[in-house]
Amino acid sequence: MVTIYAVIMAGGSGTRFWPASRRLRPKQLLALTGNETLLSETVRRLDGVCPRENVLIATGRHLADQTLASLSDFSEQQLLIEPVARNTAPCLAWAAATIARRDPDAVVIALPADQHITDEVGFREVLQHAVASAATGLITTVGIQPTHPETGYGYIEAETSSKEETVKRVRRFVEKPDKERAEQFVAAGNFYWNAGMFFFRAGDMVRAVETHLPALAACTKQLDEAASAGRENDILEKVFNEMPSVSIDHGVMEHMDTLGVVPGDFGWSDVGSWLSASELATRDEDGNSAPKHALLIDAKNNHVVDLRSGDEPRVIAMVGCDDLVVVETDDALLIMPRQRSQDVREVVAALKARGEETLT
Amino acid sequence: MVTIYAVIMAGGSGTRFWPASRRLRPKQLLALTGNETLLSETVRRLDGVCPRENVLIATGRHLADQTLASLSDFSEQQLLIEPVARNTAPCLAWAAATIARRDPDAVVIALPADQHITDEVGFREVLQHAVASAATGLITTVGIQPTHPETGYGYIEAETSSKEETVKRVRRFVEKPDKERAEQFVAAGNFYWNAGMFFFRAGDMVRAVETHLPALAACTKQLDEAASAGRENDILEKVFNEMPSVSIDHGVMEHMDTLGVVPGDFGWSDVGSWLSASELATRDEDGNSAPKHALLIDAKNNHVVDLRSGDEPRVIAMVGCDDLVVVETDDALLIMPRQRSQDVREVVAALKARGEETLT
Repeated sequence: MVTIYAVIMAGGSGTRFWPASRRLRPKQLLALTGNETLLSETVRRLDGVCPRENVLIATGRHLADQTLASLSDFSEQQLLIEPVARNTAPCLAWAAATIARRDPDAVVIALPADQHITDEVGFREVLQHAVASAATGLITTVGIQPTHPETGYGYIEAETSSKEETVKRVRRFVEKPDKERAEQFVAAGNFYWNAGMFFFRAGDMVRAVETHLPALAACTKQLDEAASAGRENDILEKVFNEMPSVSIDHGVMEHMDTLGVVPGDFGWSDVGSWLSASELATRDEDGNSAPKHALLIDAKNNHVVDLRSGDEPRVIAMVGCDDLVVVETDDALLIMPRQRSQDVREVVAALKARGEETLT
Repeated sequence: MVTIYAVIMAGGSGTRFWPASRRLRPKQLLALTGNETLLSETVRRLDGVCPRENVLIATGRHLADQTLASLSDFSEQQLLIEPVARNTAPCLAWAAATIARRDPDAVVIALPADQHITDEVGFREVLQHAVASAATGLITTVGIQPTHPETGYGYIEAETSSKEETVKRVRRFVEKPDKERAEQFVAAGNFYWNAGMFFFRAGDMVRAVETHLPALAACTKQLDEAASAGRENDILEKVFNEMPSVSIDHGVMEHMDTLGVVPGDFGWSDVGSWLSASELATRDEDGNSAPKHALLIDAKNNHVVDLRSGDEPRVIAMVGCDDLVVVETDDALLIMPRQRSQDVREVVAALKARGEETLT
């Protein structure tokens, strides 16, 4: 029976969820769509597929404490703490080498920490297929059935074949397209969104990195040897600094001759903005998502988030407002139309320009 | 030379400025148009017209401390503390009797505490005319030159006469009209807004109350006699409870055969709502009125008020929002379009219905 591990890539930063997201509280540590953080959701979705003790969390050093605190039943040994951020290829190469020392034939499920999935049953089914595919030695990804010609995601083109096939062959990875090409992709029917999920036997990934990213492989080999000698931590920072910062897509996947893709349609979202979060959140009959102590009168489709600490809930009264995002933290209040969610970055930039780095 | 007193009617309550206004912090104690409370503005506008020590403030018992605290150079002896709210006729009848004991020929300037005036020089000129008129024994009011057919105010119709006259005779007081009548009033040219300002010799008002409100006069006579015996406070609450609750307009002015009105045009506003406050506030080139620590991006004509206590300013970021009122206090946040300002009452009603009286 195949051993299954999971690596959850939880090193992300970002400011699209300001003022909720900060340097020390990135998106994956926020409960954007319910009561659970996206990281915790991601971990929970693996229950029944991968033993909890085989789940590793890759994150940055500055996020280690908060990451561990946000998860129950996790030990520090399950964290892969990256001393510097080096994109996904170093992250997965290190994780693969680490797991391969224990069992090179173990199948690794690599998932981003900051996604939301509506149909968890459907997702687990896809997981099982992808794991089975990876167990045969085929590095496998999941392709999300596109619902619209999105220009914000990369696409995976599959070989055209019978619809019956659970695992298709990947023809190529495609960068984020313009609108016209995105429409062609959706019309073609054999293009899927790249959700950044990968499935592989640990040894297969070690070899793929050796083939396509030899400089990175040399680094992970050093770490592997040091780990066997019990002194990995002594050289981790030095070696990580030498690693090339490259994504697993660019560095490895795009160069592989044979890759599998399992098409999936399970209500996936990368929760890319407050607009997206508002669409995924539980809403009342007026389309509002708001804490209990909010008082909304003649107000529709608002997304109200109260992240203030302390015991005293402060009433948030809205009258005659539609389609607003309102986010409160201890040190900031954000008000904007949901459709302007992308412009949160302007606030963060303006705060930096004002020298108020502590607010970003 | 005539002695001048002023009575400022500062007993008002109201919820139109929630969450800034509360039972213990009514409109006149708020700095709605600048850095000064409306009460303080009202007092200051009398400088040079009436000696500060002759200014009396009529207010409710529950507001006495805050009222005194909001004014400099005032002693407790200058407060007329009403044990129960009984509208303006009892307030002015009591004040007139009190002043008449000192000097029945003193002219009393009676003003609401919660109005804003843009042209203070023009206002003082009108004050002088009204005081001079009252000194001749004619109870006099001020009529505001209407700028539009407002249906929210009462009107004063003056006898038609040469424009040269500074003081006109009042033909009648008119209740708040409907739109059509308001338009007729403005077109007629001899109708003015009733701003609730009255000018009279103390003895003249005592006699007018005796004539038109004998039951009230009997009450004030009891207070007057008790005051002469140094025991007014002993019976104040009992007597006030017996007074009829009636406005000076209804109870006295509408029944007087001869009244004077001085037309005035000095940028008067009763600051009736957040909309009105936003129009009167100092605004930047984008039409925004906001504290320095606010961060407004692509946002126009917003009115942002931060009344939180404590030293830590919290950034208020607004992106892509126009024409909103945003008011923060320690225990409440209000967000609404400026044009919905009248609907603040719905919030207060809903809070009461939720049993959150402490927030109202």
